[in-house]
Amino acid sequence: MPELFQSPNDESRTLTAQLMAQATHAALAFTVAPSRPSVTRIGITLTPDGTPLALVSRLAAHTAAVEGAPDCALLIGDVGEKGDPLTHPRLTLQCTAEMIEKTHADYQGLRDHFLAQRPKSKLYIDFPDFQLIRFHPTEAHLNAGFGKAFKLTPKDLG
Amino acid sequence: MPELFQSPNDESRTLTAQLMAQATHAALAFTVAPSRPSVTRIGITLTPDGTPLALVSRLAAHTAAVEGAPDCALLIGDVGEKGDPLTHPRLTLQCTAEMIEKTHADYQGLRDHFLAQRPKSKLYIDFPDFQLIRFHPTEAHLNAGFGKAFKLTPKDLG
Repeated sequence: MPELFQSPNDESRTLTAQLMAQATHAALAFTVAPSRPSVTRIGITLTPDGTPLALVSRLAAHTAAVEGAPDCALLIGDVGEKGDPLTHPRLTLQCTAEMIEKTHADYQGLRDHFLAQRPKSKLYIDFPDFQLIRFHPTEAHLNAGFGKAFKLTPKDLG
Repeated sequence: MPELFQSPNDESRTLTAQLMAQATHAALAFTVAPSRPSVTRIGITLTPDGTPLALVSRLAAHTAAVEGAPDCALLIGDVGEKGDPLTHPRLTLQCTAEMIEKTHADYQGLRDHFLAQRPKSKLYIDFPDFQLIRFHPTEAHLNAGFGKAFKLTPKDLG
């Protein structure tokens, strides 16, 4: 298979940073059973160092799934109201999910940061079944429209 | 883990049918390697019997991936401009992908149908690397907003 991905340039790095900064939600691909993926919508924000962070319920199937199989992926970038949906830029982040337990050294800082970013989460962030997950990107694919595909490393994500 | 899903009623079946009928694109979760899922955006339409149908390039990684590992999933349902993104309804379809080769008995009918639904695809639908994929749902999860989750069978999809 030919390599369709270009090396990133400043423009594609900037677009990637914009997509990540604007993202309020993502499609999370997770593993239900070996070679059986599923996908669901989750709310996300970024940590101060730019890593995707989600608050999810432990009652949801995807939470247990990524705890057991932390290799996962996020798709971010909305489709606009007009035109071909595939002309709108989007970003796939291959990630390793890290469960941030309440005993985690970063828990309090991330909880307070999440709450500041998503004030309405105060209604449930301290419920016993709620769980912060940090998604560490291992590789990223930016599709900026037809014929404009870039493969990025964690370093390119800044 | 408690069962969060309710049995579908007429309202949830109707909403599911609307989401499918309106979908022009989906987040496709596919398997890159065992327990390593990825996710990308694809354009979709429905066949006359209501099955999701996509036209993809064989040069794309997800095309080779679903050919080798046909268990996959589609997430459909857009996020509106306003409000919490998780209040907007969305549908996860667990699917088995079927590659529709040009020698497939259904190829010509599906090609003509796709072309009628997506006239701009005439520019590339007959390129040798383009490939129709039909996604047969095996199970569906409708999330119609907080606390409104339904598990549906292929029969519920009509």
